[in-house]
Amino acid sequence: MGIEELYPAGRLTAAQRATAAAGLDALLLTPGSDLRYLTGYDAREGERLTCLVLPAEGEPTLVVPVLERPDAEAAPGAGYRIVDHADGTDPWPLVRAALPGPVRAVGLADRMWAQQVLALRDALPGAAQRLASDVLREMRIRKSPAEVAALAEAGAAIDAVHLRMGEWLRPGRTEREVAADLAAAIRAAGHAAVDFVIVAAGPNGASPHHGTSDRPIGVGEPVVVDIGGTMPSGYRSDCTRTYVAGGPAPAEFVDYYAVLREAQRAAVAAVAPGVTAEALDAVARDVIGAAGFGDAFLHRTGHGIGLDGHEEPYVVTGNPRPLQAGMAFSVEPGIYLAGRHGARIEDIVVCTTDGGQRLNTTPTELIAL
Amino acid sequence: MGIEELYPAGRLTAAQRATAAAGLDALLLTPGSDLRYLTGYDAREGERLTCLVLPAEGEPTLVVPVLERPDAEAAPGAGYRIVDHADGTDPWPLVRAALPGPVRAVGLADRMWAQQVLALRDALPGAAQRLASDVLREMRIRKSPAEVAALAEAGAAIDAVHLRMGEWLRPGRTEREVAADLAAAIRAAGHAAVDFVIVAAGPNGASPHHGTSDRPIGVGEPVVVDIGGTMPSGYRSDCTRTYVAGGPAPAEFVDYYAVLREAQRAAVAAVAPGVTAEALDAVARDVIGAAGFGDAFLHRTGHGIGLDGHEEPYVVTGNPRPLQAGMAFSVEPGIYLAGRHGARIEDIVVCTTDGGQRLNTTPTELIAL
Repeated sequence: MGIEELYPAGRLTAAQRATAAAGLDALLLTPGSDLRYLTGYDAREGERLTCLVLPAEGEPTLVVPVLERPDAEAAPGAGYRIVDHADGTDPWPLVRAALPGPVRAVGLADRMWAQQVLALRDALPGAAQRLASDVLREMRIRKSPAEVAALAEAGAAIDAVHLRMGEWLRPGRTEREVAADLAAAIRAAGHAAVDFVIVAAGPNGASPHHGTSDRPIGVGEPVVVDIGGTMPSGYRSDCTRTYVAGGPAPAEFVDYYAVLREAQRAAVAAVAPGVTAEALDAVARDVIGAAGFGDAFLHRTGHGIGLDGHEEPYVVTGNPRPLQAGMAFSVEPGIYLAGRHGARIEDIVVCTTDGGQRLNTTPTELIAL
Repeated sequence: MGIEELYPAGRLTAAQRATAAAGLDALLLTPGSDLRYLTGYDAREGERLTCLVLPAEGEPTLVVPVLERPDAEAAPGAGYRIVDHADGTDPWPLVRAALPGPVRAVGLADRMWAQQVLALRDALPGAAQRLASDVLREMRIRKSPAEVAALAEAGAAIDAVHLRMGEWLRPGRTEREVAADLAAAIRAAGHAAVDFVIVAAGPNGASPHHGTSDRPIGVGEPVVVDIGGTMPSGYRSDCTRTYVAGGPAPAEFVDYYAVLREAQRAAVAAVAPGVTAEALDAVARDVIGAAGFGDAFLHRTGHGIGLDGHEEPYVVTGNPRPLQAGMAFSVEPGIYLAGRHGARIEDIVVCTTDGGQRLNTTPTELIAL
């Protein structure tokens, strides 16, 4: 998969058309996924301004710190000019100069820092500020075949880490020790960056976003392992499995794990174009609720994934959006019993015309190590 | 160094007084260094809202996603109540409810996402938005003894990685292979996260923010290695050394490296209370300029460091702020010759009443491996 397929040159022009159609004069994109989507440039976040000025019409301009100019020039993107600013100088006049004519409304990168949002209010007085996602959402929410291939590559890389879990996870080791080994393995499997490593044993497993701790893993304790990273392509992995180390799991855990596994299986099986995101959430929720664990499923069923680890579509109550072929998202129900233990099973799934395609393919059984 | 010393309970009250004095009704702090500074809570960034509502008077409220409530409760902070919201519900009414009376002006975390800044405009119509750093800058810019100790611990950890460079850096290996080993070593040295790994050999060394590449390191090529991470304390490391691997460096490089080393030494020696940030920048710049390399020093001399990798004070032209005891910042001049090679030497330095104290203490000679 070539970088040109992942970041095709036509996107800038398509984004300009969509910007005009949305009634915006320009998009202003600081480092992050929108900038990378349009240019392939994996820019550094920082206090020095990097900003793609994408007018609805006319030549786009990428404003960069002079010390990062070589990196910007090396990005695969084309179709824009690059201008730079030195430390100690004001970069905002470069942004203004890159905007043709009067500016009534601009779309800001969703994750632009507040300090830049407020600086832009001063630099472009009178310009209404909206979000760039109003324009780019519809482009990014359906992945191209090259993007699906990149997500599949990421999925295979994180699966390879899960398959080696027995090398690291055993009673007596602390969550943090296991997590350090996992971080190294995530890189060794081909990721360019480690995004998160959750190793949550016993009662910590009941906290869905627990990271790690110095608590040693106990014999027979369920351990939730949720790991993910970013590949050199820019696309991300995210996969959760639950393990039991060194002895049999508690009986009540085995029972609700079976419920969870059925909920996750049913939701993956329900993926199809036209099914709404909230209906998919309900598939998993209904299975868990019918077994009496509804209150223990503390979060939504899933989130989109791509250049961001969490992006649209969100598989959540209140999201009426129908799934479409090309959408990629997690299916990750969980059951959490405070003070005791918890479990989660997560696969990334792509919606195709033939239904859901799992990009994580390791078994979802409770894995005894 | 206990977590209580690093994150003392009195900070919230001090911040409330400063908020009132700045004419703000409240600070609104999403995940990041300001939130951590005031509560010790290392919150996840994400699309789910986490926000400390710190009114100028009255009880502060930490709004969190319900699935992260256990993490928020485990934070060392005290003196605020925690309220939570579930996926699929609107969290902004919780923010409004946590604000006493009418709200005319609020201070936003500098790195709050634009999507939250714009949502807050709708949630608090008529409230002027400013930056929380207007209030917190003066608290954070001078480090407490416990913070200096945490930065020293971080400095020692990254120094330990540099001292082992000969294990990894040698001709024929790619920058990326060396960087992967360094990332593992940064964690092994005690960091909780790897923030950046720059391994820039030969012509790549002329690009100050080059990351890594698949280019093999050549014999006798200068290699800039700039590495840093975040310790479990939350405080950061950042140190650059330049190496030559497998053979003698080019003669012109050896010559300008001596200039650079003198510039860095002179700037470190010039650190003292009352010296302005821009004057310190000029110390390094004058040495390099006098040797004829002024145009090759592409960036400022340094940046503050603490809970953020880059924060105030910036050691840059145009910053007239006098240094004060407790300020911590990098001193990192560089010389970059496009298409050939480059060099940078970086230490973190704390300003004390007795002058600058280096927190990185490995030799700054060109290191032959």
